[in-house]
Amino acid sequence: MAREKRKRQRQSVVPGRSPGTVVVDPEAPKPRIRLMAYGPDALVEEEIDHVADISRFLAQHPVTWVNVDGLGDAQTIQDLGQLFGLHPLALEDVVNVTQRPKVEEYGQQLFIVVRMPIADRSDETEQLSLFLGKDFVLTFQEREGDCLEPVRLRARRGRPRLRNSQSDYLAYALLDAVVDSYFPLLDRDGEQLTALENEILTFAEGSVPSRLHDLKGTLAPRRRLMSSFREMFAELLREDTPLIADATRVYLRDCYDHTLQLIDLLDMYRDTSAGLMDLYLSSLSNRMNEVMKVLTITATIFIPLTFIAGIYGMNFDPDRSPLNMPELGWYWGYPFAMTLMGIVAVVMVFLFRRKGWLGSRGRKPPGKPPPPE
Amino acid sequence: MAREKRKRQRQSVVPGRSPGTVVVDPEAPKPRIRLMAYGPDALVEEEIDHVADISRFLAQHPVTWVNVDGLGDAQTIQDLGQLFGLHPLALEDVVNVTQRPKVEEYGQQLFIVVRMPIADRSDETEQLSLFLGKDFVLTFQEREGDCLEPVRLRARRGRPRLRNSQSDYLAYALLDAVVDSYFPLLDRDGEQLTALENEILTFAEGSVPSRLHDLKGTLAPRRRLMSSFREMFAELLREDTPLIADATRVYLRDCYDHTLQLIDLLDMYRDTSAGLMDLYLSSLSNRMNEVMKVLTITATIFIPLTFIAGIYGMNFDPDRSPLNMPELGWYWGYPFAMTLMGIVAVVMVFLFRRKGWLGSRGRKPPGKPPPPE
Amino acid sequence: MAREKRKRQRQSVVPGRSPGTVVVDPEAPKPRIRLMAYGPDALVEEEIDHVADISRFLAQHPVTWVNVDGLGDAQTIQDLGQLFGLHPLALEDVVNVTQRPKVEEYGQQLFIVVRMPIADRSDETEQLSLFLGKDFVLTFQEREGDCLEPVRLRARRGRPRLRNSQSDYLAYALLDAVVDSYFPLLDRDGEQLTALENEILTFAEGSVPSRLHDLKGTLAPRRRLMSSFREMFAELLREDTPLIADATRVYLRDCYDHTLQLIDLLDMYRDTSAGLMDLYLSSLSNRMNEVMKVLTITATIFIPLTFIAGIYGMNFDPDRSPLNMPELGWYWGYPFAMTLMGIVAVVMVFLFRRKGWLGSRGRKPPGKPPPPE
Amino acid sequence: MAREKRKRQRQSVVPGRSPGTVVVDPEAPKPRIRLMAYGPDALVEEEIDHVADISRFLAQHPVTWVNVDGLGDAQTIQDLGQLFGLHPLALEDVVNVTQRPKVEEYGQQLFIVVRMPIADRSDETEQLSLFLGKDFVLTFQEREGDCLEPVRLRARRGRPRLRNSQSDYLAYALLDAVVDSYFPLLDRDGEQLTALENEILTFAEGSVPSRLHDLKGTLAPRRRLMSSFREMFAELLREDTPLIADATRVYLRDCYDHTLQLIDLLDMYRDTSAGLMDLYLSSLSNRMNEVMKVLTITATIFIPLTFIAGIYGMNFDPDRSPLNMPELGWYWGYPFAMTLMGIVAVVMVFLFRRKGWLGSRGRKPPGKPPPPE
Amino acid sequence: MAREKRKRQRQSVVPGRSPGTVVVDPEAPKPRIRLMAYGPDALVEEEIDHVADISRFLAQHPVTWVNVDGLGDAQTIQDLGQLFGLHPLALEDVVNVTQRPKVEEYGQQLFIVVRMPIADRSDETEQLSLFLGKDFVLTFQEREGDCLEPVRLRARRGRPRLRNSQSDYLAYALLDAVVDSYFPLLDRDGEQLTALENEILTFAEGSVPSRLHDLKGTLAPRRRLMSSFREMFAELLREDTPLIADATRVYLRDCYDHTLQLIDLLDMYRDTSAGLMDLYLSSLSNRMNEVMKVLTITATIFIPLTFIAGIYGMNFDPDRSPLNMPELGWYWGYPFAMTLMGIVAVVMVFLFRRKGWLGSRGRKPPGKPPPPE
Repeated sequence: MAREKRKRQRQSVVPGRSPGTVVVDPEAPKPRIRLMAYGPDALVEEEIDHVADISRFLAQHPVTWVNVDGLGDAQTIQDLGQLFGLHPLALEDVVNVTQRPKVEEYGQQLFIVVRMPIADRSDETEQLSLFLGKDFVLTFQEREGDCLEPVRLRARRGRPRLRNSQSDYLAYALLDAVVDSYFPLLDRDGEQLTALENEILTFAEGSVPSRLHDLKGTLAPRRRLMSSFREMFAELLREDTPLIADATRVYLRDCYDHTLQLIDLLDMYRDTSAGLMDLYLSSLSNRMNEVMKVLTITATIFIPLTFIAGIYGMNFDPDRSPLNMPELGWYWGYPFAMTLMGIVAVVMVFLFRRKGWLGSRGRKPPGKPPPPE
Repeated sequence: MAREKRKRQRQSVVPGRSPGTVVVDPEAPKPRIRLMAYGPDALVEEEIDHVADISRFLAQHPVTWVNVDGLGDAQTIQDLGQLFGLHPLALEDVVNVTQRPKVEEYGQQLFIVVRMPIADRSDETEQLSLFLGKDFVLTFQEREGDCLEPVRLRARRGRPRLRNSQSDYLAYALLDAVVDSYFPLLDRDGEQLTALENEILTFAEGSVPSRLHDLKGTLAPRRRLMSSFREMFAELLREDTPLIADATRVYLRDCYDHTLQLIDLLDMYRDTSAGLMDLYLSSLSNRMNEVMKVLTITATIFIPLTFIAGIYGMNFDPDRSPLNMPELGWYWGYPFAMTLMGIVAVVMVFLFRRKGWLGSRGRKPPGKPPPPE
Repeated sequence: MAREKRKRQRQSVVPGRSPGTVVVDPEAPKPRIRLMAYGPDALVEEEIDHVADISRFLAQHPVTWVNVDGLGDAQTIQDLGQLFGLHPLALEDVVNVTQRPKVEEYGQQLFIVVRMPIADRSDETEQLSLFLGKDFVLTFQEREGDCLEPVRLRARRGRPRLRNSQSDYLAYALLDAVVDSYFPLLDRDGEQLTALENEILTFAEGSVPSRLHDLKGTLAPRRRLMSSFREMFAELLREDTPLIADATRVYLRDCYDHTLQLIDLLDMYRDTSAGLMDLYLSSLSNRMNEVMKVLTITATIFIPLTFIAGIYGMNFDPDRSPLNMPELGWYWGYPFAMTLMGIVAVVMVFLFRRKGWLGSRGRKPPGKPPPPE
Repeated sequence: MAREKRKRQRQSVVPGRSPGTVVVDPEAPKPRIRLMAYGPDALVEEEIDHVADISRFLAQHPVTWVNVDGLGDAQTIQDLGQLFGLHPLALEDVVNVTQRPKVEEYGQQLFIVVRMPIADRSDETEQLSLFLGKDFVLTFQEREGDCLEPVRLRARRGRPRLRNSQSDYLAYALLDAVVDSYFPLLDRDGEQLTALENEILTFAEGSVPSRLHDLKGTLAPRRRLMSSFREMFAELLREDTPLIADATRVYLRDCYDHTLQLIDLLDMYRDTSAGLMDLYLSSLSNRMNEVMKVLTITATIFIPLTFIAGIYGMNFDPDRSPLNMPELGWYWGYPFAMTLMGIVAVVMVFLFRRKGWLGSRGRKPPGKPPPPE
Repeated sequence: MAREKRKRQRQSVVPGRSPGTVVVDPEAPKPRIRLMAYGPDALVEEEIDHVADISRFLAQHPVTWVNVDGLGDAQTIQDLGQLFGLHPLALEDVVNVTQRPKVEEYGQQLFIVVRMPIADRSDETEQLSLFLGKDFVLTFQEREGDCLEPVRLRARRGRPRLRNSQSDYLAYALLDAVVDSYFPLLDRDGEQLTALENEILTFAEGSVPSRLHDLKGTLAPRRRLMSSFREMFAELLREDTPLIADATRVYLRDCYDHTLQLIDLLDMYRDTSAGLMDLYLSSLSNRMNEVMKVLTITATIFIPLTFIAGIYGMNFDPDRSPLNMPELGWYWGYPFAMTLMGIVAVVMVFLFRRKGWLGSRGRKPPGKPPPPE
């Protein structure tokens, strides 16, 4: 699953195109226009076939919401642009569906772009372009299906706060629905992360790094919490409210100061725990190096010796040929073999000392601190 | 213990819900309302059953503190909202207990959210929502038991500063109690960290990384100290106080400059010590690589030789069959075996040279600097 | 391919040269001046041989675009400088083609420097220097061939927006063409990155780090998305537009707050996932250390034993000499050898215990948490 | 030495204590009050036993410096507070000696907290609390012994600048003495760092990482130097001084621009050298992996073979029992053994190929770039 | 070479010294004063022996440049201070030659400190202190020899821009010469870096990390380029120039937006490539762990077996003693030995399974993702 998604989204900006050109993706779904117009007393919902039909609703109701699902027809989009007096650059951004969330002011209108999650593809988002005018909200979506249904329901059910408000409240309600639709996604991410964490913690059970990880897991959110505290106090001190007397402000400054002290402490802890992880890992490397050296020294000394012993364990028949292991028949044969082995061992030990692996002579890895002066 | 807590807090934001809706967690404890009203001369404390009972205290005392423990009943919360004229969005935040510390102004009221530690669960915090009005403080807690008892005691004992002040001082006293309740928690974290540190330091005793860790442990707090110094001087230079003459400000600028020099030095030290750790670790890796190569070369040369020696040490009976190790009876048998071993050894050495593990020929790891021009 | 490009671009700033000196690179191509002058009704394009010829176009057309390809002739550049009244420092920057993108105001002119990609060398950029005056745009390029052709086409085709505008729109159109020409380059980088990613993911298939990588690949863009959301809401709250009523702003502040909560959550996830990677890697090191120790202990105990067995497997002929392995003929020979081996094994085990590799005694790597008090 | 100091400083903030309470540490030394009062013509120094005695000096001399060594008596401190009109919160900070450097304005007084090094304990600092009033400076130290002696000497010697100035200059002189007392400490840190660096450099001599470390050691201070340059030019451009004419400012902007170019270059170098370290380390890991594989393949193939050879080298007596190694007497015994070894070797090689360790088939570590399209 | 330079520069701030004291380093060279006074028509250059001689030039020429090489005489420096009315703190900074570049305003003078490279010691810089007054520039250098010669040449050659300007232009020219003198140094650093890079790239040829390094080497400068673009557009949008009409500004905002999109993309690429490096390295560690386990399992199983085979390959003479390897003569001897080996092998395999190294049972390293729900 992971691998399939590794196709980077291609940019829809085509260099050299005249700015403000509306060029639609031929594969995009055709637009479907749904209109909802309401005031305190009435609400009409209608599906619109011709853009021109929209204008009569605009005059009749305090708020008109025109929602366009699908960006597959340039003509419709340009007609809407003309009807509502949209700026060509904004229209270009509507069809280039890789915009970042932003807000731009064009004369009497606000142009807002946000991105909303797509129901069944948690990693992808679709662009929602929103035009806010005095008496209308115009939204463009890439495809049908969205997270705005609760807003429609509230309008239909005649919730007074929505029905009595202007178009800006509708715009807010839509933005709110978009932002809130990210919470379930993050819940899902959190669950995945927890699953992975539990798996790794089982693997690392009880080890020093896992205990450090635990401690960090306590300190990091506390640090963020304290940052929020600090901001809160800073805002309280800054805020120009008659509710807080100047004499009390002095005391609040003291609170603020305590928060700074807590943050200082937490920063110190964080530094220390980061340093400890490094220290532990480097000690582990050091330790492994030591283990390796013991293995290497033992093996490298004894392997040649064992080889020599193996030689003289061969069964070549000395009776058949004077060349066949005459040493076996020598008077000094066995002492000769033992001496040979001794020499090999001494040479090896000498070489290791030269490399500084065996203590006193030669290059030595630093480690012990120099004696204090 | 560590693992149990790995359940991420679920978000209580439910997408698509109408803003300002008070939806309580059915498992939350039922609200218990305690009221404390006081002025310079009198203090009454009472447990309130019906929200409507509160209003008569508001008129009689300069400051009324209404504390609600438990958020399990929507009706009570909405009644309180109506009584004190709270904004629905603020009420929604009261019951959604995952808010970050923040302060918001709603008309004549300040709405402050902080989080306080829960006595016996050091990693979790509970939300304290505080409304500050002209003559009242209204607090909501998730459950009974809090760190605000000292404030109550001070009020009961008639401490003049608290009893003579307005509601803003009470709000300050509550916030101060919350902030200060984090100090013991951090003490506990610090102890855990120290325990872990001592354990790791024993493991890493006297090594270069542990000495670097020590030095960093000196430099990092000094760097933070100097940052505070710098801020302090900057504020002294900025502050518009008649206490400091302009002529003296020139001298203070010089102090400030010295602080910048100290910070510069400390930054240099920090960079260097970070670089040294990297350098040490990479040298360790280099060293281990070298150890591995010695082992590999020795083992890889001698293991096949020992195998050959092992072959000719087998006891197959040449008398039973001409196929049974006829080499043992050959005239040139032993020289043949020795030559075979020699060839194997030479081939191995040749392969290692080709890999650049044995010095002169082939790809060599970079290391020695080129001779200076 | 990679290695060839490792020649750092040499700086063209020559210390000690008088500021504002125009010193051309002798190898730079000779300038070729192309002029395009237009208004709503007419457009002329001409190749200019003498700088003096330009002045007559300036008076006749609302907008004159003079484009110079190649910076190989100091005289031409200085003549242009005189004709258009350019500042010597700006001219110096024109020929020193290592400028960063910047804009500088010189009296009645804006001097803008940008860099545009070179068609067939994706890693290099060429400098485009642009002077914007009331009725002219003067551009200098390092060589012929650029990404500005679409702008020329739009002018020739008489696109009204371009033809009716002043020189500032032309400048915009040129800058826009330059910026947009980076999109295909980034597409290519993205493809390379994806290829590399797929390769590494195949190598790391299904492992914990690859799953963490996947999760991070989801969280990082979401974090960036939320930052854009936050900026958008902050701007909406800041913006002084009559379209949004103050009552609605309170609600938008709530939206903003939700965004902050999402960001907080995502920061927590990011911290955790970073910590998990560290934890996993350290556990892996720990694990490898353990594996190494098992190997080392086994090998280091048995290698000397096997060596002793090898000794007594040698075939020295005891009949030929009393020195040849007399042990083989001893009454207690075999028990002696077995005891010798036993002693070696015990000594080894003792040494390993002392090193803390075998459990109870001596320095032990930290790991198990101390029992809770 | 390192370990002893690992006791985290305990916080002296006690949650729930009434703000502005002066609670002294019972182990703190008792206060010793020394007074120095001076003007242009006269200077008196006296040791004060009763706080009330101070007031008569205040009237007589332009500047009075009251220095309190030791914070072990709450009464004395509160008396001083009353005499000088100090704010209770400031007094609380005086006795809670874990404050960060800060400056706070309380009505007609400045309250300044700094920390000064303790002579013989280089890692610890003591708190110096300083109150600056119109005609006095009041300082509190934790214990006797400080770095302020030079200021006293200057006052005694009648240095005109100090003796003619107001209390603000004295406050400056004290702060200056504190800041400057950190320079020798940093010198000592620098020496320790250099000692450690030399040790590690000896260990890493001539290696690639040590050369990179060298280069970084050149680039990092240069980067910091250039940042100072940039700030300097930015300040020159910003500063509203008649000394620099507007025409010259244009030239200075060019200088500023050159600085930005230098910074850009240095940032590029820094990125590259960081990347090179990573690249080197990963190549080292790669290399070690390769070494390990060679060892593993050789050992894993030959160890079983050598074992088989060892089996048939055993001396069980076939004459005593038909079960004792009958293979040794088989006609096809030797070929059988050799074939068995061959099969084992082939199986091993096959397994390694399947794991992708031996080249062509199976999962292969990525490495070679795909052929260009 | 590297090691010699590891002497940290000692700070020249001596704690407790009276501020504004001029204490010269006794080893510093004696001052040599050179004067250059000029106006549009005349230029005189003279070497000055007595500071008093300077005053007559000040009156006669519009600009007088007094350059002091060497700071070894306090009297001369103080005389100059008196003549030009320099602030004592500035003079102190002149002789304490470890200042950072900075600019300070002292009444009618600007005091500027910069650092210039020393010709033959590329890692060190010398301090250039510059006082700019209405009609003079006074510079102090640590020693003779500087990078200011080109400015002198320009003055001597009568370049009109320099000769007609005020002292501020001279100050600019000197600062410009200093900044530009860093370019050759950085060129040299760049060459060293490239040499090192080529060496490491040869070592890492074609590997995944080296390809990632390549890609990063493309992305990082592009990211920096885009930042410059963004700043440029932000400045264009901010700048209050009549050259750009408001209608065009809307279009420029679109350009700016495209730049932000490019930056977003590049940040995503950078994150991904950083993650890929980590992923690759962790996979490498995983791989090495796997290799190590295969080696360890094989070796640890077969080494004891081979040892047993070695035992029964010993040649102790059973005829000499019933204790000498009686097993060799047992009826069930060979089966006994084989069974013993079998048991050892089975026990080993069982232990490895328990450790989770051999698949099914026991603690297993996490790796495979859980099956999707």
